[in-house]
Amino acid sequence: MNRPLSVGVAGLGTVGGGVLKMLRDNAAIVTARAGRPVAVTAVSARDRSRDRGFSVAGLRWYDDAVALASDPGVDVVVEAIGGSEGPARHLAEAAIAAGKPLVTANKALLAVHGGYLSRSAEEHGVALGFEAAVAGGIPAIKALREGLSGNRIAAVMGILNGTCNYIMTQMREHGREFAEVLADAQKLGYAETDPSFDIDGIDTAHKLAILAALAFGRPVAFEDVHVEGIRRISAADIAFASELGYRIKLLGIARRTEAGIETRVHPCMVPLAAPIARVDGVFNAVVAEGDFAGRVMLEGRGAGEGPTASAVVADLIDIARNRLTPVWGASGVALSSEPAVPIGSHIGAYYLRLMVVDRPGVIADVTAILRDMGVSLESMLQRGRSLGEAVPVVLVTHETRESAMRAALDRIAALPTVMEAPSMIRIEAG
Amino acid sequence: MNRPLSVGVAGLGTVGGGVLKMLRDNAAIVTARAGRPVAVTAVSARDRSRDRGFSVAGLRWYDDAVALASDPGVDVVVEAIGGSEGPARHLAEAAIAAGKPLVTANKALLAVHGGYLSRSAEEHGVALGFEAAVAGGIPAIKALREGLSGNRIAAVMGILNGTCNYIMTQMREHGREFAEVLADAQKLGYAETDPSFDIDGIDTAHKLAILAALAFGRPVAFEDVHVEGIRRISAADIAFASELGYRIKLLGIARRTEAGIETRVHPCMVPLAAPIARVDGVFNAVVAEGDFAGRVMLEGRGAGEGPTASAVVADLIDIARNRLTPVWGASGVALSSEPAVPIGSHIGAYYLRLMVVDRPGVIADVTAILRDMGVSLESMLQRGRSLGEAVPVVLVTHETRESAMRAALDRIAALPTVMEAPSMIRIEAG
Repeated sequence: MNRPLSVGVAGLGTVGGGVLKMLRDNAAIVTARAGRPVAVTAVSARDRSRDRGFSVAGLRWYDDAVALASDPGVDVVVEAIGGSEGPARHLAEAAIAAGKPLVTANKALLAVHGGYLSRSAEEHGVALGFEAAVAGGIPAIKALREGLSGNRIAAVMGILNGTCNYIMTQMREHGREFAEVLADAQKLGYAETDPSFDIDGIDTAHKLAILAALAFGRPVAFEDVHVEGIRRISAADIAFASELGYRIKLLGIARRTEAGIETRVHPCMVPLAAPIARVDGVFNAVVAEGDFAGRVMLEGRGAGEGPTASAVVADLIDIARNRLTPVWGASGVALSSEPAVPIGSHIGAYYLRLMVVDRPGVIADVTAILRDMGVSLESMLQRGRSLGEAVPVVLVTHETRESAMRAALDRIAALPTVMEAPSMIRIEAG
Repeated sequence: MNRPLSVGVAGLGTVGGGVLKMLRDNAAIVTARAGRPVAVTAVSARDRSRDRGFSVAGLRWYDDAVALASDPGVDVVVEAIGGSEGPARHLAEAAIAAGKPLVTANKALLAVHGGYLSRSAEEHGVALGFEAAVAGGIPAIKALREGLSGNRIAAVMGILNGTCNYIMTQMREHGREFAEVLADAQKLGYAETDPSFDIDGIDTAHKLAILAALAFGRPVAFEDVHVEGIRRISAADIAFASELGYRIKLLGIARRTEAGIETRVHPCMVPLAAPIARVDGVFNAVVAEGDFAGRVMLEGRGAGEGPTASAVVADLIDIARNRLTPVWGASGVALSSEPAVPIGSHIGAYYLRLMVVDRPGVIADVTAILRDMGVSLESMLQRGRSLGEAVPVVLVTHETRESAMRAALDRIAALPTVMEAPSMIRIEAG
């Protein structure tokens, strides 16, 4: 039997606690897969006396997480604190600087400081594992970074936030409005008290930035991600989507275009025939398109104690086996420098819903604006008649440039016969 | 730049040709991901003069594939010959014995001789890569062996043969019988002239034997796989399946039960709500259930030049990076010895379709036999009335033991009022 791998875990919440449990419950399996025992020997958390439902007896305790990095008995550090700054960041930097492999579930940390951390990990020759940072129990990082490693990736996209997907699934299944479903989700613990991180798309954007770096072998670039959340999605849009043969999903999408790499997070209309359209509830999915592999989809649980622990432990087993992969798939000097493409240059089809006064000439005004901006229509749907009152008009465009679409929308929104801010949802093939 | 990895490829058909193309077309990507160039320097095939649509100029040529193993300029051997015996087997054994890593797409070889080859690879300390052997471009081997490595796996199942899935999808979409669709598939090149390897489930069984070994960390045991193909599936069964809310899929299933490991390949009724039920056409899918990760599904192209090359090249990149994993996830001594469970011990629900004479008392006879054998019914569907003629009766049972079900079926088949051999399809949750 080889020497055990000694693990220090910082943070004993859902992630850290799950790792402790999995390494204990599945010790025999982990030992067989890792070729040696993998055991937590030291931990750090804010409150030593708190009852967590598992014992920390016999483990070295640190009040200061950063101290784990300098514990000579710790071979590898698991950062399960969370947040892109503060102790999580300090511990990550200290562990790598001390030449210790780091495993983290922290997407914010990687999205914001992944460039520095990956350079530091390379310099110190240590592993930086983050399978748990994206799509939880789905081995999406490994699939992209190693499984499809010889492919030129055209696009990677995913449903990366279970809270958003749960809310939109509930809205569709029960015909309810966003605010109501969110309130219920908060009561049930499926959404945070302050839900903005999830529902405004930031969490998805962190994960997308990581996936894009892996898919395209380039440094992580969170600041280039265009981000929109799901607050503005209405039950009416969800119902129209179903009628038109689509599902609305909050997707993170990174696509290689002629001009460079597009990265964007926003609600999308996805055709029902696309496998990702059927990924409902709290499930996550990641789709990658490789030039040789074709389209590969991975689906599973994106969050929670078990799935996150599964991903962290897989990283620990890789480390125990000395399986080392550069953070973004290629070493720093071999990373690509393809430029980021701004959202205004995006080319795609659009769904528009306008609430217009039901009066002769209104549609003519709208379509004239679209024509003037070079936006051509694929279809139009007008539902209900109520002379002089607001009725919905749904338009689906052919492929057009986002900048033209936005200019047209500004002019349409300014028409006196358009009663609400137009609803615009991008259409994705999925 | 590190020393290039020099690859010898035996067999220049779809697999070998694809590998040559991918390593040429994506040389820059592969070099970045592998940390060094990966280049084919030697090849072997039967006919040197054949026009393959790509050049082998500048490559060392061997008429005898086994000679690749002893070429001192070859660092790693790709076996793309196929078949469980003959030159494929000889080359695999020779390469490993010569201390050279082996990459193969050959599921038959691994299913039949995987035990010997894995022991030999371990003894010689060389990698044995076979990502391409199961589910083509889907990184299913990596996901199971490394991505879910800390999980106790309850089950792994998959749609592992695109020919079968294509045929059954066509049958459903066009309401056609098996023989007609098979003949068309043969004309279109989607099925072989001798299709038995695919449609009798043997190919699926080879792949399942490999997945089961990985999922449960045990030696490969092809001989324990219960195998049934799709020849007996009729358009009537497919139509009834749709009516009852199911799809019929040829699944390979390996499941941990109290008595040991069940491995079986047969057509299944899968509820439409299960993601695997919607994997249609030539697509493959693999579902794994881990105790911590939960259910993970991977979907993509299971065959063809591009997907297979993608998998082989991923293995080559792992080898170039010295990422080494034991063949079945754990070293030989750490493999599990859980017993195999025979199909008679399977417990599940069943769909039965009987063609019975439409006459009073027939159903009573059938249900009396089921009652006597302890098989309880969930539902019954009788369609059409045609006194004195054969009409279909569809029965869905509650969970029951296969041995009881079979004994009941033998007695039912012997009833003078039952006109055809009963159709029995196992129901799987998916």
